Amino acid sequence: MSIVKVSAFSVSLDGFGAGPNQDLNNPLGVGGFDLHTWAMKTAAFAAMHQLTGGSQGVDNDFAARSFENVGAWILGRNMFGPIRGPWEDESWKGWWGEEPPYHVPVFVLTHYARSPLHMKGGTSFYFVTDGAEAALEQAKSVAKARDVRIGGGVSTIRQYLNGGWIDEMHLAFSPVLLGEGEHLFGGISLPKLGFKVIQTAVGEQATHLILKRG
Amino acid sequence: MSIVKVSAFSVSLDGFGAGPNQDLNNPLGVGGFDLHTWAMKTAAFAAMHQLTGGSQGVDNDFAARSFENVGAWILGRNMFGPIRGPWEDESWKGWWGEEPPYHVPVFVLTHYARSPLHMKGGTSFYFVTDGAEAALEQAKSVAKARDVRIGGGVSTIRQYLNGGWIDEMHLAFSPVLLGEGEHLFGGISLPKLGFKVIQTAVGEQATHLILKRG
Repeated sequence: MSIVKVSAFSVSLDGFGAGPNQDLNNPLGVGGFDLHTWAMKTAAFAAMHQLTGGSQGVDNDFAARSFENVGAWILGRNMFGPIRGPWEDESWKGWWGEEPPYHVPVFVLTHYARSPLHMKGGTSFYFVTDGAEAALEQAKSVAKARDVRIGGGVSTIRQYLNGGWIDEMHLAFSPVLLGEGEHLFGGISLPKLGFKVIQTAVGEQATHLILKRG
Repeated sequence: MSIVKVSAFSVSLDGFGAGPNQDLNNPLGVGGFDLHTWAMKTAAFAAMHQLTGGSQGVDNDFAARSFENVGAWILGRNMFGPIRGPWEDESWKGWWGEEPPYHVPVFVLTHYARSPLHMKGGTSFYFVTDGAEAALEQAKSVAKARDVRIGGGVSTIRQYLNGGWIDEMHLAFSPVLLGEGEHLFGGISLPKLGFKVIQTAVGEQATHLILKRG
């Protein structure tokens, strides 16, 4: 069955999914890069970027699994790029170069219309201006039997959580304190939304949690 | 060197150190009991309560270590008992029966004066009405070369954190979501207070973190 899921989403031990002051030099906010160490060391991450090497183990299993059965992605505008306001031109094509690691349609939430971007390797970016629910419907219709993955960032996940649209979340807690930035849970009660912890696993560089709504 | 420390303090994955609505039936707030499963299964916990059995392993090592080298404790009034306002009489002697597991002086923060309580096994409760710093001075003077342990609850730890008085914290993250209750970090930036993660260890039922201010 097709579900809507968050996978391999990294948070600090104090609950932040990104650091403060995101910009071109700090796409994940100040300190935010450290949240992702666990993923970047894995063989799955290396392979995704046409590299070799990388670690095997629990972290790698979760990284690999996060790319399985994904039929469409949804990203917030800030995860697609550092540009705010209207698109000045169409030169910004995401953080990921000519061949992004998605290989399926990616729906980007934005207030500013833009033509679809078709990249190498099967990734197409579609810019959705009529809201989170509309993006979800479009994503579901292209994903068909496969899952829709809500990629992030924090405010996008919070929006889909509050809408009651997320079925499953895999969070990776990294042994890092950020102290400020974008908090994933603040003001949101996961139990009230119906989530339960159904699996915990300890990786080499992060602790993995699977939360399921049911 | 004598330090001021928090040890074996359990928090949920969403950062709560106690559930909501603490009362006589829910001394840790609703759902709060589940935070402590990791500790209650250990041999160290069993031994502390004159029982036998209990688990060996990482969780047990941390539970045992939390009682080492403690010369005095500081507890908030709510951790001592469910009674609010003035002490109606002196019949309430804590949650722990005639022989509490402290075996050293325990300073209880309260707005209402009360005579010291001398219990079996070396535990004495002293009721401090002139604030957190005064309690800390008294605790340090009796602890001498040993450490002062800030037992909790959440608001007491937050008070000592904000005062800049805590040197080291051992937190145990339990695989539980509370959604509401008393949040340990809300509005507090541990990095700004100078804390760094110096150790992480994965236990059988919790993930352990050591934070040190330096």
